[in-house]
Amino acid sequence: MPGNSFGTLFRISTWGESHGGGVGVVIDGCPPGVPLSEADIQPELDRRRPGQSRIVTQRKEGDVCEILSGTFRGVTLGTPISIWVRNTDARPEAYSEMESLYRPSHADFTYDAKYGLRNWQGGGRSSARETIGRVAAAAVAQRALRVSLPGVEVRGWVSQIHEIVMPEPDLSQPVALELVEANAVRCPDVATAERMIRAIEEARRQGDSLGGIVQCGIWGAPAGLGEPVFDRFEADLAKAMLSLPATKGFEVGSGFGAVKLTGRTHNDEFLMKEGRVRTATNRSGGVQGGITNGEPVIFRVAFKPTATIASEQRTVGRDNNEAVLAARGRHDPCVLPRAVPIVEAMAWLVLMDHWMRWLAQCPERAWAVRNAAPAQR
Amino acid sequence: MPGNSFGTLFRISTWGESHGGGVGVVIDGCPPGVPLSEADIQPELDRRRPGQSRIVTQRKEGDVCEILSGTFRGVTLGTPISIWVRNTDARPEAYSEMESLYRPSHADFTYDAKYGLRNWQGGGRSSARETIGRVAAAAVAQRALRVSLPGVEVRGWVSQIHEIVMPEPDLSQPVALELVEANAVRCPDVATAERMIRAIEEARRQGDSLGGIVQCGIWGAPAGLGEPVFDRFEADLAKAMLSLPATKGFEVGSGFGAVKLTGRTHNDEFLMKEGRVRTATNRSGGVQGGITNGEPVIFRVAFKPTATIASEQRTVGRDNNEAVLAARGRHDPCVLPRAVPIVEAMAWLVLMDHWMRWLAQCPERAWAVRNAAPAQR
Amino acid sequence: MPGNSFGTLFRISTWGESHGGGVGVVIDGCPPGVPLSEADIQPELDRRRPGQSRIVTQRKEGDVCEILSGTFRGVTLGTPISIWVRNTDARPEAYSEMESLYRPSHADFTYDAKYGLRNWQGGGRSSARETIGRVAAAAVAQRALRVSLPGVEVRGWVSQIHEIVMPEPDLSQPVALELVEANAVRCPDVATAERMIRAIEEARRQGDSLGGIVQCGIWGAPAGLGEPVFDRFEADLAKAMLSLPATKGFEVGSGFGAVKLTGRTHNDEFLMKEGRVRTATNRSGGVQGGITNGEPVIFRVAFKPTATIASEQRTVGRDNNEAVLAARGRHDPCVLPRAVPIVEAMAWLVLMDHWMRWLAQCPERAWAVRNAAPAQR
Amino acid sequence: MPGNSFGTLFRISTWGESHGGGVGVVIDGCPPGVPLSEADIQPELDRRRPGQSRIVTQRKEGDVCEILSGTFRGVTLGTPISIWVRNTDARPEAYSEMESLYRPSHADFTYDAKYGLRNWQGGGRSSARETIGRVAAAAVAQRALRVSLPGVEVRGWVSQIHEIVMPEPDLSQPVALELVEANAVRCPDVATAERMIRAIEEARRQGDSLGGIVQCGIWGAPAGLGEPVFDRFEADLAKAMLSLPATKGFEVGSGFGAVKLTGRTHNDEFLMKEGRVRTATNRSGGVQGGITNGEPVIFRVAFKPTATIASEQRTVGRDNNEAVLAARGRHDPCVLPRAVPIVEAMAWLVLMDHWMRWLAQCPERAWAVRNAAPAQR
Repeated sequence: MPGNSFGTLFRISTWGESHGGGVGVVIDGCPPGVPLSEADIQPELDRRRPGQSRIVTQRKEGDVCEILSGTFRGVTLGTPISIWVRNTDARPEAYSEMESLYRPSHADFTYDAKYGLRNWQGGGRSSARETIGRVAAAAVAQRALRVSLPGVEVRGWVSQIHEIVMPEPDLSQPVALELVEANAVRCPDVATAERMIRAIEEARRQGDSLGGIVQCGIWGAPAGLGEPVFDRFEADLAKAMLSLPATKGFEVGSGFGAVKLTGRTHNDEFLMKEGRVRTATNRSGGVQGGITNGEPVIFRVAFKPTATIASEQRTVGRDNNEAVLAARGRHDPCVLPRAVPIVEAMAWLVLMDHWMRWLAQCPERAWAVRNAAPAQR
Repeated sequence: MPGNSFGTLFRISTWGESHGGGVGVVIDGCPPGVPLSEADIQPELDRRRPGQSRIVTQRKEGDVCEILSGTFRGVTLGTPISIWVRNTDARPEAYSEMESLYRPSHADFTYDAKYGLRNWQGGGRSSARETIGRVAAAAVAQRALRVSLPGVEVRGWVSQIHEIVMPEPDLSQPVALELVEANAVRCPDVATAERMIRAIEEARRQGDSLGGIVQCGIWGAPAGLGEPVFDRFEADLAKAMLSLPATKGFEVGSGFGAVKLTGRTHNDEFLMKEGRVRTATNRSGGVQGGITNGEPVIFRVAFKPTATIASEQRTVGRDNNEAVLAARGRHDPCVLPRAVPIVEAMAWLVLMDHWMRWLAQCPERAWAVRNAAPAQR
Repeated sequence: MPGNSFGTLFRISTWGESHGGGVGVVIDGCPPGVPLSEADIQPELDRRRPGQSRIVTQRKEGDVCEILSGTFRGVTLGTPISIWVRNTDARPEAYSEMESLYRPSHADFTYDAKYGLRNWQGGGRSSARETIGRVAAAAVAQRALRVSLPGVEVRGWVSQIHEIVMPEPDLSQPVALELVEANAVRCPDVATAERMIRAIEEARRQGDSLGGIVQCGIWGAPAGLGEPVFDRFEADLAKAMLSLPATKGFEVGSGFGAVKLTGRTHNDEFLMKEGRVRTATNRSGGVQGGITNGEPVIFRVAFKPTATIASEQRTVGRDNNEAVLAARGRHDPCVLPRAVPIVEAMAWLVLMDHWMRWLAQCPERAWAVRNAAPAQR
Repeated sequence: MPGNSFGTLFRISTWGESHGGGVGVVIDGCPPGVPLSEADIQPELDRRRPGQSRIVTQRKEGDVCEILSGTFRGVTLGTPISIWVRNTDARPEAYSEMESLYRPSHADFTYDAKYGLRNWQGGGRSSARETIGRVAAAAVAQRALRVSLPGVEVRGWVSQIHEIVMPEPDLSQPVALELVEANAVRCPDVATAERMIRAIEEARRQGDSLGGIVQCGIWGAPAGLGEPVFDRFEADLAKAMLSLPATKGFEVGSGFGAVKLTGRTHNDEFLMKEGRVRTATNRSGGVQGGITNGEPVIFRVAFKPTATIASEQRTVGRDNNEAVLAARGRHDPCVLPRAVPIVEAMAWLVLMDHWMRWLAQCPERAWAVRNAAPAQR
């Protein structure tokens, strides 16, 4: 299978370049009867949209989505849902140098190496604009999943920018959406957020850029999601996250920190709590043997500093001559705030897909869970 | 698709439980004409085999593989290659407590939650014994790939055990296999290796276990492997690695460390070197925009401390009663040494798959690379 | 995988209902560098478009396609190609009875049974309008394949309408396109075509409809396409054809007629001809053991009489009450003429997919064939 | 995906050559908790086994299957089920001419064309022996499906051999298994069966072979199985059947006969019967719009006369020299009797796969059907 689709049963196929007719997604496999209109999708797109604050790119795109198929009278039909967003603010001339020069740490060179040509306008297919389709599809997944599992919640936030680290929040329940959305950097800790914003503004002033970490959790997912051995829940999450532009790392639960513990201090002992099997700690991060265990699924994704910077850098061109390049065009000094809804989107897609897979293979168990109260899952 | 297969064109399907008839793999899509016999596979299986030193499990399995199909007169046919290893040293009675009790941080509880039942002997399907099929398949992938790309090399090693960290080696060329295989812990730095071995022995004595990091590199892969946008080379690597038992994190290139750099200090500037486009640094880890750029692909995988420990732990049972469990049976105080060939195996599988995908979509470019000298790729 | 995608490497996903925003297709995996613009696609869409003659439906749709992504400066990028056609002549009120009544031998009842709801306007997803995406995608496949295999040709025609059977043409080379396109029924034999047209007009006058057979051939395909054992070339053709609306049967080569021959009279003896291995006869229909043998691939597809007729028929409704229904709205008294380009389209898709699969698994052989003159393949 | 797997959720991968270690199958996705042992599979393998009567090949294979994984204490685990049959009666020397000569209408030439080499012993991978894996997997599918849908039945029989046609049986309910199994040719009409057997014996005496038709039905399947638009139930059936060796055609319901009817005489009017929506006739063959409608699914598969005959035929060799060949080795003068269980097997696989797909996408509807009495589905 070519690489522009994701998921096995709730399967999405994204298309579109940064500059061209538009970007979109086709969702195949969505259950029928899910209430859905553009109004359910647009708010998620708005969260990832550029131009919302001083610390992100000033590119102005309405990013207004249109559902072209798969719904009828306000509900899904079970047929493919085609959603697209027209490109409106394309200024390809702003990127003309990219035709001949390879931007450092971008995909210009590798697209040329792979395909022998590329759409150099705005990064073409490698632009973060591609993620619009993912976010739109995830808005659908979210609504579809909630029909079956009303209590499930996915929540991400920025936990680190450069060297500024947020104190670990209480992970036993979802971090409040209001806190995440309360500031431009999507860090739920107010004091940390202010420091992060200042750091990003300073980087912008210096023609530089910053990276950071998005932490994300899934609450309310039942025990039983994920498939041995290759399609482990965390393996699919890892792939989902590393498929996002600018990501360099993924860890679940204790992550790389596990290395400094020992079996005795790392293992999550089981105990009974309110009639359910629970773990005393959650170093497993909600997955054991590739399958969710009912605890919150907690993971972190590392994003590198934005590759596009306003400083001069050495590079080479298509003609193999060395040159110097300084980015023009609009760009984010830090992608982290806009990455939050995208990380969440990928988590929703993995969740919904594995829920459907469980329904298919183990209908008795999945159905019983579906009919149980959230607290008893 | 169910979860026991990996790869799109070089596709493997593993089967088998720890205790049962055996474990094996079916490889579909292997090119014809590749020289192959059991003698090509056995050495790789021997590297992952238990019982080789004091610091790994003492379970004695010959792990002798047999090719049942797909070869004829010493070469592959292009038809499915079925390889299996019979289980011989199964002592299910050693695991009888696992029938009723859930081992902490193991897959016992989650398999029950998902399927409603499990083979509790030796971990069943969640046993590391499943990786035999992966290693055997990767031995085939390695031979098949070398027909087309003779200079490619994959090499992994243990770079950290608990708090003992090996100095960063020269990554511009493969770490020497002889150094990796020279000691029981598969750390190429002799002094570090000795400290690691002592730490593992100490953990065993204390009924405890240790985790660590496997670092791995791919050298000689051409620029052009990997597919936008979901099947990025590093996304497939991330999934491959997180599909291994006991893994908690993955990072490529600068990884989580990228967060502490800025765009200026992180970007890899391009330059010309011996007629090829190269990067001055390799914080990208050999992939840009999801596609290899011809530099070494460098990644790291975090393994948690072995969950099976000889100490008492609280847990609950299938009957939802709380209990205390101390592991019997044989187990590794540290899986890292045996993880090295498994990490390498997954990398070979990703490599071969993407090479075939490139041949299919961009035959002119892939073919030109195939016919170029390794230095000119 | 859900059911709205086709192909493994040249993979298409169609979307859209008869009445709604439009219909379209996303093509993933197309090779880069293929010259492509709307002008390459539109002629194929025009061939399947309704309203072209008295004997097909009078629905007026421009069916003007737009490429939204995947091309740049007139060539393909290797990224997903999104093509769509806006719906313009939707008159849903013409179909209002379909909301409550199940049309006999249509998909109304089964969609309700499967999904619990449906878009009843114009047949929704089950409308033949869905095939626009297939035809557009096949126009791309055709151009992409011809870059590698310039001499390949796919040609279909109407060989039977009701009881009117065309004499078997010379199948050693492609039936001339001019003859097929010379008349409204797409039967290359003029005398037969006239009889067919009269029969269809007579059926229309009587409020009835007719079925028929499309015969189709592939010329110039090299020996070696198709995969054992499930993805045989003819198995994929069979699926492709039976996935078209109104089809009831598929046969390749001797087909059902094989039954009345014996091994001696059926077998195709091999002989040498102009330096190539050929068969003396072609009862195999160009495939042996699931793999093309270099002879023309000849197959036939049976289409039932159009289900929509202007006569009264008994049926039941969503409320389970029995009723009487006579179709209003526009419809074809015979789909065969418009089926020809659709059958050809599916054949191009199968061809291109298997060509790419061969390139991936057996690059040496496929590459040698690619570089050989058509006569020496 | 390579071509040796079938199904999306109940997915099987077969492996093995006619002569080699053995043949087998890995089943991935089977629901857990299905009672299963070798005793459930062996009877189906015995039905397809050679050597059972005078009219089939005299090759003696016990075809004794062994389950290597995926079951525990007599039930399935939800993990991959590996089943194999060892090859025991291989006499490769009987086929030595096949090394250098291409048997007419066999896969010898095309395998060489595709792969550049082949296992020429007994047809290698193209041998009908490959179907053992399918039959074993289908025995599992059958048992798994009956847990959810106890009343479902698949039944095939030989309806035609050469020019001897059986009278159409009552298709409103399954043809009795006892009648099918009562004679060596698996034709439930005794008088016809006797004529068929005589014809086959006569063909054998003359060193010739015969083809025929297997008719098959599925009874008790609920309305709602099958996916628009490519994975229509009948499209998947068509692919399944055309993937069998020696098949040349497939038709469902009215099939090619539909061509001679008109819309008025072909359409299946709906009516209410015992509280269910039914059709007055069944020319649709149980599928409408690619989805089952609750009526029996009736289809027919054409098999060519066995290609291996004891008469002299002209052919060419690997060296491109023309030659004369007369088959030695054991072979069937008519494959039809042994084809019956194989056709049924493929139907079970399609059924089970679509049932699981329905559970995944439309759980409410599928679950309601599962809990309904068979008569009320």
